[in-house]
Formats: sequence, C-alpha cells, structure tokens
Amino acid sequence: MSQAPVFVGIDVGGQTIKGGVVDDLGKPLSSVNVPTEAAKGQEHGLGQMCEAVRRAVAAAGLRLDDISAIGVATPGTMDIPAGIILDPPNLRPWKNVPVRQHIADVFGKPTAFQNDANAAAFGEYWVGAGRDARSMVLFTLGTGIGCGIILHDRVLEGEHSHGAEVGHIIVEASNGRMCGCGQPGHLEAYASATAVVKRTREALEKPGTTSRLSEILTAQGDLTARDVFEAAQHGDALAAQIVEETAYYLAVGAVCMMHTIDPDMVVFGGGMIAAGEPFLERIRYHVRRMAFPVPAERTIICYAQLGTDAGFIGAAACARQLLHHLRSSK
Amino acid sequence: MSQAPVFVGIDVGGQTIKGGVVDDLGKPLSSVNVPTEAAKGQEHGLGQMCEAVRRAVAAAGLRLDDISAIGVATPGTMDIPAGIILDPPNLRPWKNVPVRQHIADVFGKPTAFQNDANAAAFGEYWVGAGRDARSMVLFTLGTGIGCGIILHDRVLEGEHSHGAEVGHIIVEASNGRMCGCGQPGHLEAYASATAVVKRTREALEKPGTTSRLSEILTAQGDLTARDVFEAAQHGDALAAQIVEETAYYLAVGAVCMMHTIDPDMVVFGGGMIAAGEPFLERIRYHVRRMAFPVPAERTIICYAQLGTDAGFIGAAACARQLLHHLRSSK
Repeated sequence: MSQAPVFVGIDVGGQTIKGGVVDDLGKPLSSVNVPTEAAKGQEHGLGQMCEAVRRAVAAAGLRLDDISAIGVATPGTMDIPAGIILDPPNLRPWKNVPVRQHIADVFGKPTAFQNDANAAAFGEYWVGAGRDARSMVLFTLGTGIGCGIILHDRVLEGEHSHGAEVGHIIVEASNGRMCGCGQPGHLEAYASATAVVKRTREALEKPGTTSRLSEILTAQGDLTARDVFEAAQHGDALAAQIVEETAYYLAVGAVCMMHTIDPDMVVFGGGMIAAGEPFLERIRYHVRRMAFPVPAERTIICYAQLGTDAGFIGAAACARQLLHHLRSSK
Repeated sequence: MSQAPVFVGIDVGGQTIKGGVVDDLGKPLSSVNVPTEAAKGQEHGLGQMCEAVRRAVAAAGLRLDDISAIGVATPGTMDIPAGIILDPPNLRPWKNVPVRQHIADVFGKPTAFQNDANAAAFGEYWVGAGRDARSMVLFTLGTGIGCGIILHDRVLEGEHSHGAEVGHIIVEASNGRMCGCGQPGHLEAYASATAVVKRTREALEKPGTTSRLSEILTAQGDLTARDVFEAAQHGDALAAQIVEETAYYLAVGAVCMMHTIDPDMVVFGGGMIAAGEPFLERIRYHVRRMAFPVPAERTIICYAQLGTDAGFIGAAACARQLLHHLRSSK
C-alpha cells in the first residue's frame, strides 16, 4: 500500500460520541456525532461506537477498506493497556467494557485505546497548540479539569492508568474545598467551570454583596462560568475577583507541572478559554512570578487550538502511533 | 573487552564529594570522600572532583584503564544536556561550570552528567528500593526536599533541567509558609527536616505550650528533626502532632505524584527516614485515604535503601546508561 494511511478516531463522551476520519497529517476528513445513550447499557454503547466509526467513514466518502487503524478515547476509570473501561462515573451503568477488543473484532483493524483527556492532549500535540513542542501538559477546563501529559511523543499513561489526573492534585492541603471526587483541596475544586460558578454563588450569598450577577442569577435561576467572565469584562468587581482567583489557581496547577514534568508548553483548553486573551495573560502573570526563573521564562503558556475535535483527532493519533509500532516491530 | 565494565560515580555536595567505583551489577567496589571546598572556587572544585575519581579508583584497587565511563551528579541549577552547572546556591560562588567536558577531557572517558536528586533516584531504581519498579518517584528529606522521577529506565530531566523539583510544588495555595526558595506554600516548607524544626519552634513559642522539647531546646540551644521524632516516640503530644502533620504533608506530595506520574512506587529517603516504620505507616495511612482507589491500593510506598551512597551509585548508573547508548548507536 503506497498511499498514506487514514484513520478513524472516536471520542466517547457522557452524552455524545464524536468521530471522524483523520488523514496521516492530522487533517479531519469528516466529523460526526452519535448519541452515547449510556443509560441503555454497554452493549448498546458499543453498538453506538461502531455506528460512529461507520458514519465517520461514510461522511468522508470512504469505505472501511480505506481505513488503516481505529482509535477510541473514553472517560475512565479504565485499564488502558487492557483496552477496558472499568467503572466510569460518566457512563453509568457500564462496568468492565472490553472496548478495544470489541472494535477490533467488529472492524478487523488495529485498534488503539486511550483515556479521553490523554487523547485530547495527544491531538493538540500532533496538530494543535503543541505541534512544535517536545513535551506538553494540557488542562481541559469544563465541568471538571481533564489533563493529559505528552512526553516526547508518548502519552504518560501511568502504571495504573491514572497518569495525568492533575485536576486531582492537592493545592489546598488545609481546609480545602470539596472536589466532585469526594476529596478536599483538589485543583478541580477551585478552577473548573463548575467551581467558578460555585464560588461565585457562595460569594453572592454573603450579606452586603453587590454584583450584577445577583440579577442574572435571579433572572436565569442559575449562572454559568461564561456569565461570570462576561460580568468581569464589564467591570463587575465580584466577578473580576473570582476570575482573578481562577487564573491564580490555574497558574498554581501550571507551576506544579513545571516543577514536576518541566514541559516546554502548558496548554489550556475547554469551554472556559472563551474568556480570551486577558484571562490567559493573568494566568501567565501568576506563572511567571511563581515558577523558577528558567521555566518561568521559557515555558510557553497558551490556549488549545482544536476545540472539541481534539479528542477524536487525538484518538486517531493513537491509531497512527499503533500502526507505526506494528510496522516497525515487523 | 569481554570483561563486564566498571564505572566511577561521584556525587558533588555542598560540603563533600562522595565517590566510588561501581560494578556492572550496581555493587560499590569502593567509597571515598573528598571535601568540595566550594568557596575556593570552581577551578579548585573541578580539581577536587578529579581527585575523587582517582581516589575511588585507587581505593577499589583498580587503575583508570579499568574504568569504562564516569558519572557526575551535582546540585543545580544546571543545564543537564549541556553538562554545565549554572548558578548553584549550594556551591557558591560557582557560575557556568563545564563539569562534564572537564571530566571527560581529564580522563578521556565517556562522562555522564546528572542532577544529584535525579541520580539518587536512578541509583535506588537500579539497585535499591526501586529495583523491581518500572517507574518510581523518590523524595529525599533533608534540609530541603530533593526529588527524582524515573520512568521506564529514563530520568525525567524536563525540557529546562527542572524536572522533578517536587519539593517546590504548591500544596498550600493560600497563606502558605515561605519556602527557602522564596516562594510560599511549597511542599518543602512543610515537610523537610528544616521545616519540621521550624514548625516545632513556632509551636513551642505559643503561650501555655508544654513539651519536653522546650527543655531540650534550652539545654542544646537548638533542635533537630531527630529530637522531634524521638520526643514523639516518647509520648510528647506536641512532637506527635508535628510528626503527624509531617506525615500528612508527605502523603499530599505522594498523592500529587500518584495523580500526575502514577508510578508503581513512591520512595522516601534522606536523614528523616531514621524515624522508622511508624512514621512510614502514617504516610501510608494518609496516602490510602486520599489517593484514587486503584493507585491507593497498588502503589508501593517505602523507604530508600542505599542511604547516602544513592547519589554516587546513581551517577555510576548514568555512566552505565551512557555507555549502553554509545554502544547501541555504533
């Protein structure tokens, strides 16, 4: 086969499976969405994954024969080397789902399996913000904080598939806020989109607080991180303080990685980066004053570039790496 | 040359250069000490390093011709790939010292260069506590907290030679204690031997405090971490509280690494491990309750085994790895 190989990547989320065909240079040739319907059970879910693969291929105007390998990214908990989802909070009631073997059997293709946050990082490393980096840490800011670490073209999976769970490092060892995982003091409890809203609501409840966010909360019945960032941009003092604290905590997370991994790039992705350049500048400001001088000066702090496509592009990158390994070990 | 190669490792400290010949299985054949005499300047210091190499060889009953490669471990700051010490707080007034080139020129041998904490970790990984581990994080508890991370037989050096500076991760992002490096909230400011003494002295100064440590402080004019651990073993309540808090903070550091690197082993070394098994059990207790269930159950938490020889044995391990690379790239 003299043609450059093409890959299918799929990114299984709690609500939606995103999939696409990706060429050997990392360019998506198609992009499709299939509902996960996790509640219908894991057999149904495996079927939806296969459906996403088929639709991605069809949408690219290709046939399955044209595909060299498939990559699947899913939320944890998981056993990455075994290719199994174990006990995933975001895919209840699934348990011990042999994802990789199933996809490989159905399509008869080499199939790679990876954690979704790791895959997103590998996508950004391949053709996104990190394409010129040797090593990179990605923080994806959403309901939680996802993280992926790439060291010299390798995903840091860890020995128990718990590498790069950096949303759950402890940044406030005393009297820490409770994290969604049930432990106190984690980075995620301070700097995820969910945490921004929670901290804002708490601040609004304090007597004597004045903020336009009170009116928005009353009118909408709820708040989003976007509301907080917008209010800050419009000069709301309480919102500005929450945003500044969030930038500080994200800088704390970045500095912890700079003093552990020492990558040449720390990337922030996820919905919260809609806050734009001023927010990124505040993160950089705190990183520069807190990190050791050499990494503070040299480590690039930037936003992700692939948006919500990072996961399936990264899954395709895992498929591509698998194919290279299979060919080189022949 | 059909004989197994032997190596010289030297570990340059602020006061003393430790050196030894180490065989291909990691067994030290000699162990020598030479004063660093940093204040006499870096030219003198380079001479002392060479002297340590020569004495190590002589003490093993060997000749320089018998040595296949040399490894040198030094404190930072440094540029590891360039083989240069840059601006080392513990070796003043040295600046920009081309250690690797100098040693290689003087002895005409392949010469490896590594950070001292990284080398200690590599030594423990080769023939110490981590000899059965695939990946390992070592915390060395002394005046500061040194750290080294080994991933699948490779030292995690980082892109700017700042990998594994885990004494300087931020564990108290609000109102943190000041670290020796000048930044607040670092792990080292809570859990180094120096921090144990400092926290104890502060506690003793509080009105109404009763502790046998007050008498020891008055009698000796000073306290050591050993005094605090001994007082705790003898039932002193204040000392016991300090020891418990120290175990907690070390567990925080371990959990941060388990949720970032996810190694199969976290090792504690340095003078403070004289506190023995009860202290280690308290660290394990906090790790098990704070880490995610799978790494909490599977990650081995243990003490280092090579004592102060870890640095020169690890430096020799770096020399050995360099020799393998040179041979395999021929």
